[in-house]
Amino acid sequence: MCLVPADSSLVLELGGSIGPVNVEFETYGSLSPCRDNAVLIAHALSGDAHVAGWDRHAAQTGRTWRERKPGWWDAIVGPGKAIDTNRLFVICPNVLGGCSGTTGPSSTDPLTGRPYGLRFPMVTVGDWVNLHMRLVDALGIERLQAVVGGSLGGQQALEMALAHPDRVERSVVLAASARLSVQGLAFNAVGRYCILHDPSFANGDYYDDKGPGAGLAAARMLAHITYLSDEGMHEKFGRRLQDGANGRQAGFGIEFAVESYLDYQGRAFVERFDANSYLYITRAMDYYDAAAAWGGGSLTEACRRICAKMLVVSFDSDWLYPPDVCKELALALTQANRPVTYANVPSHYGHDSFLVETEKVGRLLRGFLAR
Amino acid sequence: MCLVPADSSLVLELGGSIGPVNVEFETYGSLSPCRDNAVLIAHALSGDAHVAGWDRHAAQTGRTWRERKPGWWDAIVGPGKAIDTNRLFVICPNVLGGCSGTTGPSSTDPLTGRPYGLRFPMVTVGDWVNLHMRLVDALGIERLQAVVGGSLGGQQALEMALAHPDRVERSVVLAASARLSVQGLAFNAVGRYCILHDPSFANGDYYDDKGPGAGLAAARMLAHITYLSDEGMHEKFGRRLQDGANGRQAGFGIEFAVESYLDYQGRAFVERFDANSYLYITRAMDYYDAAAAWGGGSLTEACRRICAKMLVVSFDSDWLYPPDVCKELALALTQANRPVTYANVPSHYGHDSFLVETEKVGRLLRGFLAR
Repeated sequence: MCLVPADSSLVLELGGSIGPVNVEFETYGSLSPCRDNAVLIAHALSGDAHVAGWDRHAAQTGRTWRERKPGWWDAIVGPGKAIDTNRLFVICPNVLGGCSGTTGPSSTDPLTGRPYGLRFPMVTVGDWVNLHMRLVDALGIERLQAVVGGSLGGQQALEMALAHPDRVERSVVLAASARLSVQGLAFNAVGRYCILHDPSFANGDYYDDKGPGAGLAAARMLAHITYLSDEGMHEKFGRRLQDGANGRQAGFGIEFAVESYLDYQGRAFVERFDANSYLYITRAMDYYDAAAAWGGGSLTEACRRICAKMLVVSFDSDWLYPPDVCKELALALTQANRPVTYANVPSHYGHDSFLVETEKVGRLLRGFLAR
Repeated sequence: MCLVPADSSLVLELGGSIGPVNVEFETYGSLSPCRDNAVLIAHALSGDAHVAGWDRHAAQTGRTWRERKPGWWDAIVGPGKAIDTNRLFVICPNVLGGCSGTTGPSSTDPLTGRPYGLRFPMVTVGDWVNLHMRLVDALGIERLQAVVGGSLGGQQALEMALAHPDRVERSVVLAASARLSVQGLAFNAVGRYCILHDPSFANGDYYDDKGPGAGLAAARMLAHITYLSDEGMHEKFGRRLQDGANGRQAGFGIEFAVESYLDYQGRAFVERFDANSYLYITRAMDYYDAAAAWGGGSLTEACRRICAKMLVVSFDSDWLYPPDVCKELALALTQANRPVTYANVPSHYGHDSFLVETEKVGRLLRGFLAR
């Protein structure tokens, strides 16, 4: 959907503006006659609008990777599921700066007729929320029954409750907090370094060429380690050797099972994701700081703005957004006298738990959305 | 010192052999008349033989980076210090496969007259220990009063107690354990991926050219994150912006202080370290598994070989060799009825604590070496 037409532009938080802007989104279920059953789901770094079901439009759009698997949260979203599309109208938009349909660095810059590349403006979590509220407007919805997201999507869920207190009834923040840790900043910096220093990056103008596949793969492999936990990796791979490896002759090839896994993750990501989008989206993740933006540095002050009922969920082996920082958000909400439920879910799946622990997460969502 | 002359060769654990082999080492203090006061210090991944003092030979060797700072453990090793060179004779050799004097992939292969590059054979912690025992032999020392090391050096200290039980009186294992975690394997794999996929790597034959600086820098930046703790990084950098940055215009350049720090660490490392050595040494770290090598998979069985008094020290914010796995080693030693002292040091410095917490580590070493 073209949300910002060619004769207009969207003003951006860090300066500059962009237009036209198309937003790719999917919806599930039906909007009720009084338009009060809408739930917006915000995706994480590498997610997209295809949150549930098998993509019916895969053949038309040519996005064949979508045909291979169901939506990224199919176990949670659907008829009779925790986010029940028999009852709720689900909207899932792809973020500005991404590469899965919404305008991003690989889109054509109307000024040059060529892909934006690094001429694309910097975008923020706040920009995403503003744009997605325009989508909500365009769908004729005044109030969202809920906004739900994990990781970077959780930051959007929080930001939406902060930026539009009167339009969000409930907000669910999974495996996320009010800002990224310094360690998280550092991992993102190394990932971007790998992309920026891949000679095929060509200052972002690689769309006619092969592009920085090795750099993007390295960034993804690295990020993947932060999505898992050491105990989870230990259970899944241990120090097991890859089939065929004998522990003596592989040299620097793939020897351990965990190396094979990371290699596969890197390759698969390069097929479906744009390196420039990776730069823009990780930067947005870095910059997000709810306390600085809304509370002059105090998260409690920031939280006073919120009217939504909040659900904050952490996962005990998540070390990217560890329980402590999620608890900090829950505590700030409590101190600001806002209604909040906080749950810490036991899991070995690390940060990925919000995607993997569908039964435990589903139960929490079902209860929270039913109230 | 040429420990393996040109007409001989050193047989290696993973197959193959190498010769001639030079070993770079430094000594401090004087060997006692009855040759019973020798302490061998094993360096970690990026360390070298220059463990203490200011290098007197810097000008001759041309290794100007050495002139810039004292030895890497100068606060621990020296006259009157915890490892007291008024009393002890300290030996610190550089590892085989390294790039700081001992034969490694940048050395000339006598068969071709050119640097070995990837024709260098795979080396292991066991090979290092064997070679260093030859050095101990050459110095006319029958028994070491102690072997001491942190991180990969700690694995050497453990391996020396296992491989030469009759020749090691005490062994000090700091911030290390009997094997690397799966998460550690994964980080090493990504670091090597960055080097191997840098187009300037040229399959390891880059010595006439600029070499894979970007890949090596990325590997180092990544590794550096694992050497610190999130809490330590939070204290040191927080989300502070780099001087001159305003949080709005840096794009993908250096914006946060932590990015500047990592960038510096990457650059500095490329100046002083060889990418091929990084590959070989991290692989040795991956492969080390004391339980598999000496106990048929049981660490307790392996530990029964040990005669040395053991000191195992972990640091509570170290997540590369976390306290739990160090405690596992101490427990196995106890179960094998070997004399062991285990200490967990409170610190925010993460894995680097063994280098940084010199007062606390010094106190432990002083007590243990005095017994």
